[in-house]
Amino acid sequence: MSLIVQKYGGTSVGSVERIQAVAEKVARSHRLGDKLVVAVSAMSGETNRLIELAKAIDAQPPLREMDVLVSTGEQVTIALLCMALNKLGVEARSYTGGQVRILTDNAHGKARIQQIDGHRIEADLDAGRVVVVAGFQGSDEDGNITTLGRGGSDTTAVALAAALNADECQIYTDVDGVYTTDPRVVSRAQRLDKITFDEMLEMASQGSKILQIRSVEFAGKYNVPLRVMSSFEEGPGTLISLEDEDEDQMEKAVVSGIAFNRDEAKLTIRGIPDQPGVAYKVLGAISAANIEIDVIVQNVAKDNSATITFTVHRNDLSQAEGLLKQIAQDLGALEIDADDQIAKLSIVGVGMRSHAGVAATMFEALAKENINIQLITTSEIKITVVIEERYLELAVRALHTGFDLDSPSAEQG
Amino acid sequence: MSLIVQKYGGTSVGSVERIQAVAEKVARSHRLGDKLVVAVSAMSGETNRLIELAKAIDAQPPLREMDVLVSTGEQVTIALLCMALNKLGVEARSYTGGQVRILTDNAHGKARIQQIDGHRIEADLDAGRVVVVAGFQGSDEDGNITTLGRGGSDTTAVALAAALNADECQIYTDVDGVYTTDPRVVSRAQRLDKITFDEMLEMASQGSKILQIRSVEFAGKYNVPLRVMSSFEEGPGTLISLEDEDEDQMEKAVVSGIAFNRDEAKLTIRGIPDQPGVAYKVLGAISAANIEIDVIVQNVAKDNSATITFTVHRNDLSQAEGLLKQIAQDLGALEIDADDQIAKLSIVGVGMRSHAGVAATMFEALAKENINIQLITTSEIKITVVIEERYLELAVRALHTGFDLDSPSAEQG
Repeated sequence: MSLIVQKYGGTSVGSVERIQAVAEKVARSHRLGDKLVVAVSAMSGETNRLIELAKAIDAQPPLREMDVLVSTGEQVTIALLCMALNKLGVEARSYTGGQVRILTDNAHGKARIQQIDGHRIEADLDAGRVVVVAGFQGSDEDGNITTLGRGGSDTTAVALAAALNADECQIYTDVDGVYTTDPRVVSRAQRLDKITFDEMLEMASQGSKILQIRSVEFAGKYNVPLRVMSSFEEGPGTLISLEDEDEDQMEKAVVSGIAFNRDEAKLTIRGIPDQPGVAYKVLGAISAANIEIDVIVQNVAKDNSATITFTVHRNDLSQAEGLLKQIAQDLGALEIDADDQIAKLSIVGVGMRSHAGVAATMFEALAKENINIQLITTSEIKITVVIEERYLELAVRALHTGFDLDSPSAEQG
Repeated sequence: MSLIVQKYGGTSVGSVERIQAVAEKVARSHRLGDKLVVAVSAMSGETNRLIELAKAIDAQPPLREMDVLVSTGEQVTIALLCMALNKLGVEARSYTGGQVRILTDNAHGKARIQQIDGHRIEADLDAGRVVVVAGFQGSDEDGNITTLGRGGSDTTAVALAAALNADECQIYTDVDGVYTTDPRVVSRAQRLDKITFDEMLEMASQGSKILQIRSVEFAGKYNVPLRVMSSFEEGPGTLISLEDEDEDQMEKAVVSGIAFNRDEAKLTIRGIPDQPGVAYKVLGAISAANIEIDVIVQNVAKDNSATITFTVHRNDLSQAEGLLKQIAQDLGALEIDADDQIAKLSIVGVGMRSHAGVAATMFEALAKENINIQLITTSEIKITVVIEERYLELAVRALHTGFDLDSPSAEQG
């Protein structure tokens, strides 16, 4: 008998009919003899409806009260799912985050889970019940309702799995697994059977939207095997776990997947008279304005003047550009440059660690298509490049083929 | 400085605009220096929306899960009201029933409050905050969410007032007070400045829908002065309190109000061979089918055969009639008779206790209009009659005039 934590997102529980379909899925697993804990999100659209009510009163409502408000979304889902399970003859009990003591800090709207008391859940499981827990929420040590921020239901599921020492944490979503890259761009993209936490983290942080980064970090930290599966189709999904040390690395593909995004814009400041602390002066001022910086590259020219290039979210571009102008003046820099017609592209794979020449293969594939690389950064299991946006699809397909990721069965799109 | 508990019902908080209007009312009281605890209902329509979601899954959903579901309605309101108060510069904190330990029994859907721990609320009040509490809900000793049943927000407010030893519990509603009778029937009906708990209880149980019976009982038991006021207009409302012993009874009107309803139907069983326990045999079987019985009258005829007449809710008439047929056969009774064209009418007033001839005045006023009385029952502060439904308005107006309740200012309708 296994203990499985399942998580169903907003789309999977988006209507009464879908909740009934989820109940049937859960009931099947329950009848197979597994102990089941189910974490659910609010019905899709519900959280936005609640936020709009709040915004009609105050554009910046108090965060404590926002949490009281939006946490009702998941509470509705847990009750409805238990009703649907009960209707199928499966005894089930619903709990809010506070009721099962999902203890968080008091950072309303972006709280972090500190501890879960599994006793109550275990008692229900032992009594043969399915336990349904509201995702995305908890309570602080004073009993105030907190939320983990949007998408936090994945984190709830992983934290429950860790606290209960579950055998697997299954994240049900609208895709049937993690793919080598976005199938809408490369029709020969393949579903991966397995991927490591580290790879998944890189994929997620590079733009793959399947899982929240925090939940993957959490799963890796507590070594909770994660499985991404489809709510709507049968199938094994993709298992995300620790690297299997015994596995023959030679058998493993060098690159597991290709992630990309078009959400960023690039800023460059050139001809900064070189002096210690230049990077801090430039990037510190941007960060101080709460603008998140992604890729950073710095070079020093022959005349010892420095050039710093970095990317920010496109929504932050104009604010960042304004700040950078001021900084350039203060530092006596030559010029600044802003470009929002860029895309970021990464190849990810633990296989890179034991294979030489991966970067060369990547650059060759791009060169063959005459795609100019504007920026390069590397980590142990990832190489990221920034290119002109219009070449993105071409680049992804070229790399997908170049690293032997194409499915043999599907037609090339 | 007074401690006031205010309660706003579903219509009063039925939209963002109305919640903002309530916030302004609360803010005004707060600025006058009163300590304020506010209990609120779900926004009107919200509870029904949630019930429909549940019914789409199961016509008879588990009661525990119904409570988890519908309790979200008030939770939305408390958060929005606190946001609106905050926007007006008034610091406010929202709490669910469970959070302020409104401890109830575990009768889901119709739980009764057993205890309230006022410490947390008092700490907030001492810190100058307005406390907003979700009405209609609590939690049992295992922490399961419970609801008090529909309309239970009044009871929450009274229970909070009792626990906090409040100076007054103000129930804001869509009428500006308690009237001598329904102003839609008698245009000269007058708002009462004061009424006793006992009178209000009789008015409520006879069909006046302004307050829930349980909340009036509760207020009487703990001697919490209740005031019914309008959410939409200014005015003193009606104060419901213990009888003032010092008050000169001669000054007080004999009859405080006239209540009526058309929701009932009458059943009669005649010619029951008289034997001990006849009433129990007849009415016990009806009650066993969970049909609530209101007025009961029994007479014995010359031949010692008994006649029992009683009223039930019209919705229960056909079921009750079927049962009564069976009972008549079992007891060897002569016949049964059912009538749903009746109305019940009561005059209520503590003044009756010290005045003779009140019943005679009542019967005279009805006789003058040629209205036949089918049943009569009396209590210490109430006389109830059942008459043909079509004479109801005529009877109410005749009694309103007969007992000098007509407002001198308004035109007769």
